[in-house]
Amino acid sequence: MKRGLFITFEGGEGSGKSTQARLLADRLRKMGRAVEHTREPGGTSIAESVRRVLLNPSSRVAPLTELMLYEAARAQHLAEVVTPALAAGKIVVCERYTDATEAYQGFGRRLDLKKIRVLNSIATDGLRPDRTFLLDVPVGQGLSAARGLTKRLSAGSARAVGGDRIERESTAFHKRVRRGYLALARRDKKRICVIAWGLSIDHVHGRILQELAPLLHGKRNR
Amino acid sequence: MKRGLFITFEGGEGSGKSTQARLLADRLRKMGRAVEHTREPGGTSIAESVRRVLLNPSSRVAPLTELMLYEAARAQHLAEVVTPALAAGKIVVCERYTDATEAYQGFGRRLDLKKIRVLNSIATDGLRPDRTFLLDVPVGQGLSAARGLTKRLSAGSARAVGGDRIERESTAFHKRVRRGYLALARRDKKRICVIAWGLSIDHVHGRILQELAPLLHGKRNR
Repeated sequence: MKRGLFITFEGGEGSGKSTQARLLADRLRKMGRAVEHTREPGGTSIAESVRRVLLNPSSRVAPLTELMLYEAARAQHLAEVVTPALAAGKIVVCERYTDATEAYQGFGRRLDLKKIRVLNSIATDGLRPDRTFLLDVPVGQGLSAARGLTKRLSAGSARAVGGDRIERESTAFHKRVRRGYLALARRDKKRICVIAWGLSIDHVHGRILQELAPLLHGKRNR
Repeated sequence: MKRGLFITFEGGEGSGKSTQARLLADRLRKMGRAVEHTREPGGTSIAESVRRVLLNPSSRVAPLTELMLYEAARAQHLAEVVTPALAAGKIVVCERYTDATEAYQGFGRRLDLKKIRVLNSIATDGLRPDRTFLLDVPVGQGLSAARGLTKRLSAGSARAVGGDRIERESTAFHKRVRRGYLALARRDKKRICVIAWGLSIDHVHGRILQELAPLLHGKRNR
């Protein structure tokens, strides 16, 4: 079934996922590739409804409910957006995927990682990214960047002033998430490429293109 | 943790679950018992949001998404309503639970029953009902009853005129659901009590009280 390339961006708040995903998508389009740039948990009307429930600071969502809502949104996003794009041979650039669930719900909220992996596998029917970029960022810098972004965005969006429910978690939570992401990267070095904090946006973009070159070249020749 | 009694009602559309659950809850209260009468997937604000997504005929919900949304609503309903009531020693009377997922999503939509059982077990943390009443109804009679009820209810509810998304499924779907429920009952005779169609409301109510007597008596003497 799958024919295209599936690339995901992961990382904590304010790590620059959206910026880098957009730069990559634009660059790939300029290279003549068909690209689908998307993000989790949004992108479909059902997933956006779920996202509004999840990011509303007044919702008292039980941790297991949160996990299952993310997985539901994931299943819909895959069915509506990712799987059809891959089947059409497109390159899918997606912000957040199953690693985010392991990092945030598993390491962050300390839900059972085994349960999370079972749910991830059911929701995705086993679909794994071809390559994942983990934009690592120290928690302090990341949260400052995310909060700056929050203030610049218009009210009414999920990132309203004051931060969304995830951004307002404790620093300890975000530190666990960061450590979790790095642990996942150590477990799966072939797939997950860690990009350390401190490079300019252009440098990171260049590094990503370099990492993808063999994959893009291989795909062209298939 | 669990101390109360957990009783569920299952059955196809128009089988009389709400009527019997209400009669039972009222009767138990008159006997001096503390009762929590609830239903799936609703009962909490988050579950009601999910319910609105699920029952909206214009939503194109992927089957796996539907399954995971039901499980998310279930986890929230358990955390907010069922588990605290059981912990307080109450009798919980609940319309629909995990058997409904096996019958509707498994037998009805033909999703993988093994996946459903894994998800049920994760969402409920293994909590099983003490006793389940399956109100069996031939599909034709059940749907007529449900549609009659639909017309009598006010507009704006999930059961708007024309039927909700589940009621509008094909007769073949509802027949598979009925056969599924009966297959589950054969697998778990000790827990699931099948009540055949054709008895009066009062007769069914009497039969349910009779079935519960040993359980209620046992509970009283503990």
